[in-house]
Amino acid sequence: MKKAAIILGSDSDLHIAEKTIGVFRKIGVEFEVNIISAHRTPEKAREFSMNARKNNFGVIIAIAGKSAALAGVLAAHSRLPIIGVPVKGSDLGGLDALLSTVQMPPGVPVACVAIDGGENAAWLAGRILAVNDEALAAKLDDEASMMAEKVEQKNHDIHEKYSQ
Amino acid sequence: MKKAAIILGSDSDLHIAEKTIGVFRKIGVEFEVNIISAHRTPEKAREFSMNARKNNFGVIIAIAGKSAALAGVLAAHSRLPIIGVPVKGSDLGGLDALLSTVQMPPGVPVACVAIDGGENAAWLAGRILAVNDEALAAKLDDEASMMAEKVEQKNHDIHEKYSQ
Amino acid sequence: MKKAAIILGSDSDLHIAEKTIGVFRKIGVEFEVNIISAHRTPEKAREFSMNARKNNFGVIIAIAGKSAALAGVLAAHSRLPIIGVPVKGSDLGGLDALLSTVQMPPGVPVACVAIDGGENAAWLAGRILAVNDEALAAKLDDEASMMAEKVEQKNHDIHEKYSQ
Amino acid sequence: MKKAAIILGSDSDLHIAEKTIGVFRKIGVEFEVNIISAHRTPEKAREFSMNARKNNFGVIIAIAGKSAALAGVLAAHSRLPIIGVPVKGSDLGGLDALLSTVQMPPGVPVACVAIDGGENAAWLAGRILAVNDEALAAKLDDEASMMAEKVEQKNHDIHEKYSQ
Amino acid sequence: MKKAAIILGSDSDLHIAEKTIGVFRKIGVEFEVNIISAHRTPEKAREFSMNARKNNFGVIIAIAGKSAALAGVLAAHSRLPIIGVPVKGSDLGGLDALLSTVQMPPGVPVACVAIDGGENAAWLAGRILAVNDEALAAKLDDEASMMAEKVEQKNHDIHEKYSQ
Amino acid sequence: MKKAAIILGSDSDLHIAEKTIGVFRKIGVEFEVNIISAHRTPEKAREFSMNARKNNFGVIIAIAGKSAALAGVLAAHSRLPIIGVPVKGSDLGGLDALLSTVQMPPGVPVACVAIDGGENAAWLAGRILAVNDEALAAKLDDEASMMAEKVEQKNHDIHEKYSQ
Amino acid sequence: MKKAAIILGSDSDLHIAEKTIGVFRKIGVEFEVNIISAHRTPEKAREFSMNARKNNFGVIIAIAGKSAALAGVLAAHSRLPIIGVPVKGSDLGGLDALLSTVQMPPGVPVACVAIDGGENAAWLAGRILAVNDEALAAKLDDEASMMAEKVEQKNHDIHEKYSQ
Amino acid sequence: MKKAAIILGSDSDLHIAEKTIGVFRKIGVEFEVNIISAHRTPEKAREFSMNARKNNFGVIIAIAGKSAALAGVLAAHSRLPIIGVPVKGSDLGGLDALLSTVQMPPGVPVACVAIDGGENAAWLAGRILAVNDEALAAKLDDEASMMAEKVEQKNHDIHEKYSQ
Repeated sequence: MKKAAIILGSDSDLHIAEKTIGVFRKIGVEFEVNIISAHRTPEKAREFSMNARKNNFGVIIAIAGKSAALAGVLAAHSRLPIIGVPVKGSDLGGLDALLSTVQMPPGVPVACVAIDGGENAAWLAGRILAVNDEALAAKLDDEASMMAEKVEQKNHDIHEKYSQ
Repeated sequence: MKKAAIILGSDSDLHIAEKTIGVFRKIGVEFEVNIISAHRTPEKAREFSMNARKNNFGVIIAIAGKSAALAGVLAAHSRLPIIGVPVKGSDLGGLDALLSTVQMPPGVPVACVAIDGGENAAWLAGRILAVNDEALAAKLDDEASMMAEKVEQKNHDIHEKYSQ
Repeated sequence: MKKAAIILGSDSDLHIAEKTIGVFRKIGVEFEVNIISAHRTPEKAREFSMNARKNNFGVIIAIAGKSAALAGVLAAHSRLPIIGVPVKGSDLGGLDALLSTVQMPPGVPVACVAIDGGENAAWLAGRILAVNDEALAAKLDDEASMMAEKVEQKNHDIHEKYSQ
Repeated sequence: MKKAAIILGSDSDLHIAEKTIGVFRKIGVEFEVNIISAHRTPEKAREFSMNARKNNFGVIIAIAGKSAALAGVLAAHSRLPIIGVPVKGSDLGGLDALLSTVQMPPGVPVACVAIDGGENAAWLAGRILAVNDEALAAKLDDEASMMAEKVEQKNHDIHEKYSQ
Repeated sequence: MKKAAIILGSDSDLHIAEKTIGVFRKIGVEFEVNIISAHRTPEKAREFSMNARKNNFGVIIAIAGKSAALAGVLAAHSRLPIIGVPVKGSDLGGLDALLSTVQMPPGVPVACVAIDGGENAAWLAGRILAVNDEALAAKLDDEASMMAEKVEQKNHDIHEKYSQ
Repeated sequence: MKKAAIILGSDSDLHIAEKTIGVFRKIGVEFEVNIISAHRTPEKAREFSMNARKNNFGVIIAIAGKSAALAGVLAAHSRLPIIGVPVKGSDLGGLDALLSTVQMPPGVPVACVAIDGGENAAWLAGRILAVNDEALAAKLDDEASMMAEKVEQKNHDIHEKYSQ
Repeated sequence: MKKAAIILGSDSDLHIAEKTIGVFRKIGVEFEVNIISAHRTPEKAREFSMNARKNNFGVIIAIAGKSAALAGVLAAHSRLPIIGVPVKGSDLGGLDALLSTVQMPPGVPVACVAIDGGENAAWLAGRILAVNDEALAAKLDDEASMMAEKVEQKNHDIHEKYSQ
Repeated sequence: MKKAAIILGSDSDLHIAEKTIGVFRKIGVEFEVNIISAHRTPEKAREFSMNARKNNFGVIIAIAGKSAALAGVLAAHSRLPIIGVPVKGSDLGGLDALLSTVQMPPGVPVACVAIDGGENAAWLAGRILAVNDEALAAKLDDEASMMAEKVEQKNHDIHEKYSQ
């Protein structure tokens, strides 16, 4: 199975990346983590992206806030699927990062997930890597079942306690 | 190569789907088009999604406006990567569809593209199907090069005409 | 009198449901509480909604945040009145849940109340159940009078203290 | 069966009311139409609302734009379920009317539908009147089935034409 | 000089009213404070507003949050100038109250000030009452001069400390 | 009676001012119209505002779009009540002008009306000038009655035509 | 005097660039126009920006819409002042481009002007180039005076025609 | 080298100015700090701006919140480049200040940076002053390199710790 790359625009986004990492560990996807800024280390962003496919990456997750150009810049230099995670800042609740990440021009797509959606970035990467990987697909089905069971369990507790 | 599914929430979204179709024809991805409404034909949405993998789909594109639950509902019933295209309505400029599509809860990811981004949905689907398909990946690289050349050509025309 | 169903998209929405429950206890509406996720337990959502009328429910309250598909999904499978309560998340102040809940397509209505409006969901459910129930209607009139009196009392205290 | 009241804040909202009327005719709900402005004819709003229940109305639909106080004012003077339809103006795409209609304080609920959602106001009113009316409930089920069939038919046409 | 009325939609808005009161005390405008809810005590709102001019009020300040109908309802029943203060709630940062207060239909004006702008409501009321009152106008000029001096003083401190 | 000043930030705002003028003619308020830009003719703005009271103006209406500093600048140089009319531009639907006009800092109030609310600016100015002018107050009451009658008349026509 | 560079993200932004060009011709600033896409021709963006200073450019104007990464990418590769012009798209009124352009992270500044503000981009570039160029500064002063006179002239026409 | 002026609309904006000051100290730009309010000390704003060029300032930074007219007012009275820093208030997350600052009318440009972007205001001022100052330009290049190195160092730490 190909690897996933997790790119953070800044080390202040690490709390989001940790949610991504947690999922990858659970479903057994191999990954590398890097801090690369579209604006402060643009050369690094370009190099990483141009070489990602031949370095055996199958998907790249870009986590960035504010004017979040990171996912788009990576998408400009590679044809791998790029998942963008807009990070909430202290002012506009993440609307700036969301629109910067999702409103890409035709031809250079980014797969945007929810604001601070580090966990779903991993689930989406898992789905992408599972398209041709039956074992991973089965693993994802299992996780979905367990998630449903957990909801059912909570439902059971609350239903008893509150209904009347 | 696996197929792509294009699901429209309503036939009024057809102009967006046509942009998706145009790209798929150009890069040679096989696809099926269906109108399935999360709210009007929920059973159909469920069935389609549950059987999509075994029907040889590798990716699903959901095109819907307003309270755009379609992508999320498909993502709830399948572990394939689901690409959501929020469609602009007559009032809020597509902000409603964008937030409905992108703000998914942890565990059930949707890959959201730009408002009315039917074209990028196809490019993203192509990238996903190309993760393990070198020929398609090469095709995408070629398209990116041609796109760049087209920009360069336009640049040439305009640079001559306007600079002084 | 028919019962009210309170459906939570997640147990993290319980603080909102408690406001609903408080009102139901005050006005004597019987209710059941369940956690059912449109995205994590979609089958459960479908079953509950399809059987709600014959299980003697007269109204369903759906409490959910982010891309809040819950109310819409319930409205797709039942013709009971569905009341949607959009829940504020940590980023966009509930705008995502509000638009997801309220912007339903023609034919599948949701009765949306305010962001975090668990209390009004119950008052609205009470009004719906009172359409053909004079006793409950009278109870609601009484509560409105008491509410007005409470405002008058506070007015009295403050008027004295502050005017000059 | 009780009647539905359709209240327009201004005659400029008539195009929205006509969508409501169209549905009521289809499902056989009796209705009255009035133009009553919360701001220009407040006495009329008060009187209408206070007498609505004894005048055999079961539900009131308030259609208004901008600072849309109409639904709230009607909800203040009656305990019937009030459905608010926020109407899009020429500037903010209806966001002003939406927030004015939906963000009601605890104790005085409004059932808000989508911006310009005149059609869903009628469907919601129908669901409310059907809580204790099996015939109307069956009629609504039939309409839902027909709606689903119409989507299926469109799907059939488009699926053939576009898939490849 | 005529009096100013300060109307609060709820006692939770008292912290805003205290800013209004502080200014009135400083500039010597007589005032009365009342809690009157457009939605919970609508009769009281109507009566107060209809009788305000003959009760010697010259201006009314309405302080309210969420779907802030209060200012508009008062403006519907009186021809006195009504100043609306939108109050920030816990979700949308006061945008709901702002739009509800300011977007009034033609013929029924409200003078809207900033979100939580209790202080400016008093300054504006002072300006209105000063149109034909030279003494109050002079008092307002004095206050403006003192305000400017205070800024100058702060400027002096900071200029010394920080410039280099 | 004191005069009203109508200040336009640009001649492109004339269509809004014409609504103001129409009302002033109807209620007999004397007025002067000037184009003065806070940004292009700031000296003029300052002079006009500083001399407005002694030139017998009782109220100033400032009509401006985009970063609408006009009302605030006039309010900085005079203690007359300043009414701000935010004008819709081609992009953000007037939200920029609304926030620029309404969000004034403590001590320098602006009375903001609706986006493009040229008509209500005149009605509000009329209310301000009527605080100590019984004849104008009576005129405003008459206009309100006529407005109500007009609504009643329209109601009559539509009620007959549509109810069933 | 150094030259100004005008970079368009797409030839569809040409109508905005023409406003920039018009001002540059009026004030005698030499300029070059190029179409360079941050996403489609990223290598070109990098090269242009890295060499801009030594190619005698003193300021760069970046005109781009949607997820407008162009200004930021140019700012990442050069230390010249970069002026960003967010271009309005068909959906969100330019809010996406505005936030993408203006919300840059610390260390990599962009000077953002108004949505579709092609004209002000040139005036700002002129001000920047005039910091050490007295002739250009005088030219800008003259233009400001002429602009003020034009407003005065319009004022004269309208004042006569409308005041009464 | 010319000096930079830092103008605060209020002493409550000092925490933002301190970020500006920190950068200026690092890159050796001389500066003066003043508190001048567009609304409370408008005469001071006018004087400062009109004399700024002859007082040897090369650029002015205006830091202000809410209806942030400061940058625009300074831009109206001087032809120096004016950098506007919109400051976040307690309600709308700085959107009001952002739109007030950035949406300037043609002819009177403001260079807007991010909400609370006091640091980038200094970096932008540095770029402007460096257009004709090779030493400062080199200093900025050095700072950019150090910034990149710092990112690389953090990347190194995190890459080791998290990848697997």
